[in-house]
Amino acid sequence: MGLKSSWLASANAPGCPFPLNNLPYGVFSVGDDEPRCGVAIGDMILDCQRAEEAGLLEFEETPLFDVPFWNEVMEAGPELWAALRARLEDLLGNPAHKAAVMPLLVPQADAQMHLPFLVAEYTDFYAGRNHAFNVGSMFRDPANALPPNWLHIPIGYNGRASSVVVSGTPVRRPWGQLKSPDHALPAFLPSRRFDFELEMGAIVGTASDGPVTVDEADAMIFGYVLLNDWSARDIQAWEYQPLGPFQAKATATSISPWIVTNAALEPFRVACPEREFELLPHLKDTGPMLYNIDLDVRLAPKGKAASTIARTNYREMYYSVPQQLAHHTTSGCPMNPGDLLGSGTISGATKPERGSLLELSWGGKEPLQLETGETRSFLEDGDTLTLTGTAHGDGYVIGFGECVGQILPALEDPYKR
Amino acid sequence: MGLKSSWLASANAPGCPFPLNNLPYGVFSVGDDEPRCGVAIGDMILDCQRAEEAGLLEFEETPLFDVPFWNEVMEAGPELWAALRARLEDLLGNPAHKAAVMPLLVPQADAQMHLPFLVAEYTDFYAGRNHAFNVGSMFRDPANALPPNWLHIPIGYNGRASSVVVSGTPVRRPWGQLKSPDHALPAFLPSRRFDFELEMGAIVGTASDGPVTVDEADAMIFGYVLLNDWSARDIQAWEYQPLGPFQAKATATSISPWIVTNAALEPFRVACPEREFELLPHLKDTGPMLYNIDLDVRLAPKGKAASTIARTNYREMYYSVPQQLAHHTTSGCPMNPGDLLGSGTISGATKPERGSLLELSWGGKEPLQLETGETRSFLEDGDTLTLTGTAHGDGYVIGFGECVGQILPALEDPYKR
Repeated sequence: MGLKSSWLASANAPGCPFPLNNLPYGVFSVGDDEPRCGVAIGDMILDCQRAEEAGLLEFEETPLFDVPFWNEVMEAGPELWAALRARLEDLLGNPAHKAAVMPLLVPQADAQMHLPFLVAEYTDFYAGRNHAFNVGSMFRDPANALPPNWLHIPIGYNGRASSVVVSGTPVRRPWGQLKSPDHALPAFLPSRRFDFELEMGAIVGTASDGPVTVDEADAMIFGYVLLNDWSARDIQAWEYQPLGPFQAKATATSISPWIVTNAALEPFRVACPEREFELLPHLKDTGPMLYNIDLDVRLAPKGKAASTIARTNYREMYYSVPQQLAHHTTSGCPMNPGDLLGSGTISGATKPERGSLLELSWGGKEPLQLETGETRSFLEDGDTLTLTGTAHGDGYVIGFGECVGQILPALEDPYKR
Repeated sequence: MGLKSSWLASANAPGCPFPLNNLPYGVFSVGDDEPRCGVAIGDMILDCQRAEEAGLLEFEETPLFDVPFWNEVMEAGPELWAALRARLEDLLGNPAHKAAVMPLLVPQADAQMHLPFLVAEYTDFYAGRNHAFNVGSMFRDPANALPPNWLHIPIGYNGRASSVVVSGTPVRRPWGQLKSPDHALPAFLPSRRFDFELEMGAIVGTASDGPVTVDEADAMIFGYVLLNDWSARDIQAWEYQPLGPFQAKATATSISPWIVTNAALEPFRVACPEREFELLPHLKDTGPMLYNIDLDVRLAPKGKAASTIARTNYREMYYSVPQQLAHHTTSGCPMNPGDLLGSGTISGATKPERGSLLELSWGGKEPLQLETGETRSFLEDGDTLTLTGTAHGDGYVIGFGECVGQILPALEDPYKR
């Protein structure tokens, strides 16, 4: 299956991240207009609200686009998802619609992007084996780097939905309670080991109120985004025993602005890695459930060019999203449209494939050399961090847009009003 | 300050949990009617929707009661909270209003209660020292029972808001991944160590988007409920390292149906216990911020009478809610109306004051003897667990209503449709 051709020339250009094969969903605004739902095509955005008002997006569930988020579409369920995608392919692929649709297109260059959906709850997993091994080697012991449960269960914890922001939102270095190994008592200070985490985010589209199988979980997923789980390593080190990360991960989690649907990613399915232990029946792979998505991370010091500091691939995960989601429901935990699941940090096997500065600088012991001459152990004020993701098809690519954030300095006094 | 007198006789009866001094907020329905907001008074409920329609609850922010949850009132802010309470005191205290208000009262006996607010996010703390000491003694070492951070930081983790249910909702024993110490590999089984946790829940009423002081945090709290954080100890033991509890705490968290406001609890403020280490400045006590609330726990085996299995008091907490909330915001974590904060399990110093079966049966090693002859290490199918809370004033009491849940047996096959 090659490039699907659009009547919009920019969508057919080689390397365009948003060809007709993609059709990702976002929320945008132009100038002072209210934000609204849109679909990326080439270098333009189809304004879904105006398309609906023009009668071009009529479904049983209409109106779907009188709100500035995609949750209503999610809640309508997989049949509507398929019908909407088919309709969009027709509107943007069939030249007969060009005259009607052209006036509904807005240049991406003119648009500001917003969070594409209301985040119901946010769960972050720890399901990349190389990352878990690296972290375990640093903080515990390379011989016993993986916790005993790790190869049996997709370890996850609940994150903070209110801290999820869209790409482009600056991220302020947090204060927190820290304890240096050379001090007897903790202090309240700005984080000195503020880090990124390269992840993919999966968006739950339909609700469940009891345990679901891996295949049912797969059908519940609406789409995927890039995700950067900003992490204060020094806050985490002091707080995380015994109940896990809390304030270390609550400053911000950035996501890319476009939801790339399950349907667009279908041609890129790949299998999970071989299992060292057979998974329990309710978690077993039922087919290829990861995706072949190239990921890279760039870091630009303030006013300087960006250096690529990591390249890896989403297929490095040990557990797929359907397996994570199936595990998430085992207790009967209700899931809702808009729940966001972070994959966990994605790291490949070798040093240039590591998805966090913690791993890239080995806890600060081996500062990373940037192409512009600087070194980095952790993020510095003014640094801009950019994640990108690309799936390479036959004659086309599927892009995610960027997931960008710049680090603002910590407040001088967090309690000064 | 003694009993405030109502024209409704039942509100003035000795021991009535809902005198005019209380005025807690809930959501109720009668028969097949839609749920609506109400205020408990004596053995009745004032129907706020009808009172608003009748012009008795007019404020700048009106309408506040055309929705079946209290979030709109929360979002209106502390001035409205005070104005509403003053207005309710007048309507239900001043006999001049009796003729107008009487037709708007519904017997509590006829009402079904619902969740009183939309739970935005749910955070659970671990801030009772006796509980942390007991758990640490069992699982680690009595000499080092408290984690090193415990006396410096109110340890908390993010829970799952979607699993919060109102008192009376049955709770189904969950399945989960468990590993017995005598097996090499885990298995997927119904939990065999399902437990309750006696807690108070605090409801955040106003939003914040940066660090707040302890005093600012105190002013953000809308009210309090009883909270039972159902916990599968065997699932928790296997999953919780290194990122904390996840599925062990995601089956259900029950809350009592009435939000008892900060204002009603004001006369019952008491100080936190003495500090072993001075707290960092941003977490320091600024006055008495706990409350003197007697708590008790009853357990009734199926078809049998209830035995009281624990009695303690909310003042046993080491950290108050304002301190927990201040800590919660240190990273810049945004807080929203409807955020629910669990206090952590409340246990007194002696055995009959312990707020979980884990502690009462010392991990199952010392099964608890019920008054009806049975013993309990953990909860059994059919057991009904009831939490109650009472603040004793001068000539009146403030009650919370009960927080009740009955244990349903695990599904035979969680994947059978």
